[in-house]
Amino acid sequence: MLPKSPLAPESFPKLPAISGVELATTAAGVRYKGREDVLLMRFCEGTRVAGVFTRSLTAGAPVVWCKQALAGGSARAFLVNSGNANAFTGNRGMESARRTVAATARSIGCSETEVFIASTGVIGEVLPDERITAKLDELTSSLAPDAWEAAARAIMTTDTFPKAATRTAMIGNVEVTLNGIAKGSGMIAPDMATMLSFVATDADLPAEVLQRLLTAANDRSFNSITVDGDTSTSDTLLLAATARAGNPAVERAGDPLLRDFTRALESLLVDLAHQVVRDGEGAQKFVTIEVRGAASARAARRIGLSIANSPLVKTAIAGEDANWGRIVMAVGKAGEKADRDSLSVAIGGVTIAEKGQPREGYDEAPVAAHMKGREILIEVDIGIGRGKATVWTCDLTHGYIDINADYRS
Amino acid sequence: MLPKSPLAPESFPKLPAISGVELATTAAGVRYKGREDVLLMRFCEGTRVAGVFTRSLTAGAPVVWCKQALAGGSARAFLVNSGNANAFTGNRGMESARRTVAATARSIGCSETEVFIASTGVIGEVLPDERITAKLDELTSSLAPDAWEAAARAIMTTDTFPKAATRTAMIGNVEVTLNGIAKGSGMIAPDMATMLSFVATDADLPAEVLQRLLTAANDRSFNSITVDGDTSTSDTLLLAATARAGNPAVERAGDPLLRDFTRALESLLVDLAHQVVRDGEGAQKFVTIEVRGAASARAARRIGLSIANSPLVKTAIAGEDANWGRIVMAVGKAGEKADRDSLSVAIGGVTIAEKGQPREGYDEAPVAAHMKGREILIEVDIGIGRGKATVWTCDLTHGYIDINADYRS
Repeated sequence: MLPKSPLAPESFPKLPAISGVELATTAAGVRYKGREDVLLMRFCEGTRVAGVFTRSLTAGAPVVWCKQALAGGSARAFLVNSGNANAFTGNRGMESARRTVAATARSIGCSETEVFIASTGVIGEVLPDERITAKLDELTSSLAPDAWEAAARAIMTTDTFPKAATRTAMIGNVEVTLNGIAKGSGMIAPDMATMLSFVATDADLPAEVLQRLLTAANDRSFNSITVDGDTSTSDTLLLAATARAGNPAVERAGDPLLRDFTRALESLLVDLAHQVVRDGEGAQKFVTIEVRGAASARAARRIGLSIANSPLVKTAIAGEDANWGRIVMAVGKAGEKADRDSLSVAIGGVTIAEKGQPREGYDEAPVAAHMKGREILIEVDIGIGRGKATVWTCDLTHGYIDINADYRS
Repeated sequence: MLPKSPLAPESFPKLPAISGVELATTAAGVRYKGREDVLLMRFCEGTRVAGVFTRSLTAGAPVVWCKQALAGGSARAFLVNSGNANAFTGNRGMESARRTVAATARSIGCSETEVFIASTGVIGEVLPDERITAKLDELTSSLAPDAWEAAARAIMTTDTFPKAATRTAMIGNVEVTLNGIAKGSGMIAPDMATMLSFVATDADLPAEVLQRLLTAANDRSFNSITVDGDTSTSDTLLLAATARAGNPAVERAGDPLLRDFTRALESLLVDLAHQVVRDGEGAQKFVTIEVRGAASARAARRIGLSIANSPLVKTAIAGEDANWGRIVMAVGKAGEKADRDSLSVAIGGVTIAEKGQPREGYDEAPVAAHMKGREILIEVDIGIGRGKATVWTCDLTHGYIDINADYRS
């Protein structure tokens, strides 16, 4: 067990119950011994669902299943295990996934396409699904509306703390609640990472609206973080809406009635995404990279990710070195429009370089002090347009090597 | 001073003199104390030149100069310094570069466009060119045809050993010689890296032919290696041909007369590129990644580089863990066509996974033994086409963090 990240939140947040959502966890011994490793979330009838998944071309069997099932737009259960990703396991992995789905559907009494599954852990070993399905009776008989912290713990792999967040939002004059949990600490990069996240709300919204809101919010949260630039075969973000809140009917994602809900969903996902970065393998510093003045928002995000993924930038931060030369290097390799002589870089709010050269006589002392802190701010102005984006990452330390040089063994 | 890489060649190769090429080195104190940091290569009249440079959009002043000068196709001098990259230094950096060029042209007695410069080291500080130009008289009076090892040493930065290679080739019935030196150990990635390489030959070839041959050979050598995926602002590969060998005239790069020269040039650059990887910051293992069965050669190279750049693959190799799941992950994120169920992976010549799943009862013992060695071979068959490529990299170790967390300070 790894020591808790120094960047972890002080405590686990208090998550309220959400009408129509129940959770249960158990220790099925999929791989880990002596800890819970399976989570069942059960939703009431009428629950709608949306999802975003890894773009990996070697996605695992659970992702393949979920993408198919999503067409139905309806969910009754999420079944999640840690310890084994059931990825790169060929037909046997797919059969294992199907058996898990079928057993869960029988147990809940729903259609198979209302069961969503996710697996995280080692790649290349077929999931021992019989260990999970043997626990379904126990799981369904222990469902409770308040088991969010146990749920967040059951899905952890190399995570050093459980991750959760909650928000409320008004839809018309009705308050709705959103709860979310997430796991992920390495192989974290856009599109997406060994990142699993499950969000539930009591809002009453059509599946198509949920999907649009989720895709947009995901771009500004989980798709804007990176730990090591690697992309997992298993990334899954699912959003279930139980429709119990009794809010006014909404037909379009752009409806002004959804403004507050849209904000709350993005804020929830950003919170969870930040927690994933704060648990970045070996992370000692949380880094915010704000890019502005790029040709477009998309270009700004690519430049931000180029900086965030640069091992040289990340090791400089670990070394508390305000090495803006490496930031310039990373801007240059991003492949987006940039002009060396228009570029400005600030660290900790102090402009170090502007218009392509070091600022004469800038005061290094506050920058050096900033670099010693836990929260690092890098601002880059490309100076050629109006595109902006914010990207978050962590530093690259000896801890990352320690964790990843012997994770499997 | 860092300890010599365990992957370094046993000794510095013996480089013959090349007619029309003289070298001199000196300690100008650009940044380092107590070591030589400037190299002058002087070529006879009639020498043709070709070059390949970083694609960084924030390239340093010397690269900007060389790209302009290359249009002339003719070279009389390469002037190179270590310790300061003169990159991201705006107009003052460009002026510094121009003064260096002008002084060198006067000293040699040639046109300014026949002078090529390269700088490597810290970014963002204007090159103190007066320290270099003050040494030009000393340099020109100490030129010698055999100073290749001193030359290779003068251009080192974080390198732990000097890098050189030599080849001969027949053009018709005339033997020509090629000598090359290189530097680079971090920020090494295609397009290209803090990589400088200077190659000289006595062959008599038009500048356009040299350029075509160099671009092609560069793709299969320096553009097929990666240490950390970062791209420097300064990468420069220059090839000078003194035309002293008296080989038969050749007008086209595709002329069958050039077959042996083409092979020798590629072999020389691959040798130098391998040495750069063998000096990868913190490298303990040299990794060859052979990709076949991809949709195209270009796709194969991109997949190979995705594997080679994956921190999770590189740390697994450092941990001597045959973690093929991470290799699959890296194939999946490369963005090239792949089919999970057609993919095969072999390590150390032993097939571990085929057709998308672990091979039943494969013998782990020889693979574990292979992972403990210095030379690691990963073979990936995408199984969908005929494209193939070879890419080289090193592992990611604590040494990389040590070196890069405090290089500047």
